Amino acid sequence: MRELKVTLLQTKVYTDKMKNIEMATKYIEAVSNEKPDLVTLPEMFNCPYQTQNFPVYAEADCGESWQAMSNLAKKYEIYLSAGSIPEVDETGRVYNTAYVFDRHGNQIAKHRKMHLFDISVEGGQFFKESDTLTAGNQITVFDTEFGKMGLCVCYDMRFPELARLMVLKGARVIIVPGAFNMTTGPAHWDIMFRSRALDNQVYTIGTSPARDLDSGYVSWGHSLIVSPWGDILKQLDEKEGRITCTLDLERIEQVRKQLPLLAHRRIDVYRLEEK
Amino acid sequence: MRELKVTLLQTKVYTDKMKNIEMATKYIEAVSNEKPDLVTLPEMFNCPYQTQNFPVYAEADCGESWQAMSNLAKKYEIYLSAGSIPEVDETGRVYNTAYVFDRHGNQIAKHRKMHLFDISVEGGQFFKESDTLTAGNQITVFDTEFGKMGLCVCYDMRFPELARLMVLKGARVIIVPGAFNMTTGPAHWDIMFRSRALDNQVYTIGTSPARDLDSGYVSWGHSLIVSPWGDILKQLDEKEGRITCTLDLERIEQVRKQLPLLAHRRIDVYRLEEK
Repeated sequence: MRELKVTLLQTKVYTDKMKNIEMATKYIEAVSNEKPDLVTLPEMFNCPYQTQNFPVYAEADCGESWQAMSNLAKKYEIYLSAGSIPEVDETGRVYNTAYVFDRHGNQIAKHRKMHLFDISVEGGQFFKESDTLTAGNQITVFDTEFGKMGLCVCYDMRFPELARLMVLKGARVIIVPGAFNMTTGPAHWDIMFRSRALDNQVYTIGTSPARDLDSGYVSWGHSLIVSPWGDILKQLDEKEGRITCTLDLERIEQVRKQLPLLAHRRIDVYRLEEK
Repeated sequence: MRELKVTLLQTKVYTDKMKNIEMATKYIEAVSNEKPDLVTLPEMFNCPYQTQNFPVYAEADCGESWQAMSNLAKKYEIYLSAGSIPEVDETGRVYNTAYVFDRHGNQIAKHRKMHLFDISVEGGQFFKESDTLTAGNQITVFDTEFGKMGLCVCYDMRFPELARLMVLKGARVIIVPGAFNMTTGPAHWDIMFRSRALDNQVYTIGTSPARDLDSGYVSWGHSLIVSPWGDILKQLDEKEGRITCTLDLERIEQVRKQLPLLAHRRIDVYRLEEK
């Protein structure tokens, strides 16, 4: 498949978990007649982004949010990156977990956020995910009819090692549910997605919740799609909304042929590998 | 030392090698009364950037360019990143080599460009350094009174592995003589220096030749200094000129404390190392 039609849904997050699922359903229904191949939702789309909420909103695999998303993927025959949600395992540990479902509603990827977001900027943002979350330990790449894709969550994308390893494992598109804030957003959101795309010559997709000034953690928004040349192809502002973009997947090979960054890596001098 | 005063010299490159040395001398003399701690010159400052020129302009260690730069560093008691020049070794192999001299004129760093620039953009830039150049094999970090610094040349900076390894070896400032062109410059020059600085929470310094529309390879210019937060602190346009900036080195620790990216690396999941 040479073209991938993707729709990013920058949804608002409500305190009522079921309302978030309803709203996602409504949005996906609304775009279904445009026949996107892939639809993406934001980080913690079903839970206001606050550490104390994560254990409260958490559900196990195949829980209510999971099931609703699987059903939507199947119903509309789309690949669905169902953002991330708080997931609880059998021992009670809670994770920030991203799921992807295929056109039959099967879960084809699950990524537990691997780098927890503990930050304290003077006069700016404070947040400590590790208060209530446990980190995942897996690098996540999965197969689709469009080739391999990588999946990680927000702060994971800060680490060039992870993006590089996803790409070395074959990812050609990297999907990132993420919620930067009013400090890190304007400073770093665009440049992070642009540099990871550019350095690895892949498409990057960042899907953020819409900004809500009344919430405890104010999202930057600005969901975006970046080309393998590092250009922002489409981007939202801070408001609730969606963008659709058709990705020319051959562009990846074109860029890699013209500027062979991956082939030029000096793997005789340095080694990057999964442990 | 908490503050590092650095002056970037964005010089024009002439076909006459001796004139390039003379002009560098004149510029360094002109800024010496401002008492910079560190002065930087561009990539191939003594040789028009053309593959066929490299063997012709090449000199061995302690050659005429090397000696002139050492003398200038000593005379004005500055650290001098003497850009890069074509260097020939005892077997006749030619390298794109960057040197740094200390306040006594001693060579304290030598970096042979490790990633050779072979590019062919459709309707854009073509260049093949490997036609006449040999690649170096060393990662270069060196000590100064301001702490450790890293040194690499232009296309080397494209590779996140190298910048990361320089920083893991202790570099707090990365110096890069570089000459992007009219294709890659507007697309990638700023974002590359910004993302390496941001991801590694160090200062990055990129020094380019001035643009010369009559030369075979037209430089983008836009020499710049980027903070550990990813902000461009100062930047030139395309013309011959200089900028001076005083770097607050404590900012590095401040940024790393607020947003502990280096500490948050998941070295239990991935490993990056020099071979």
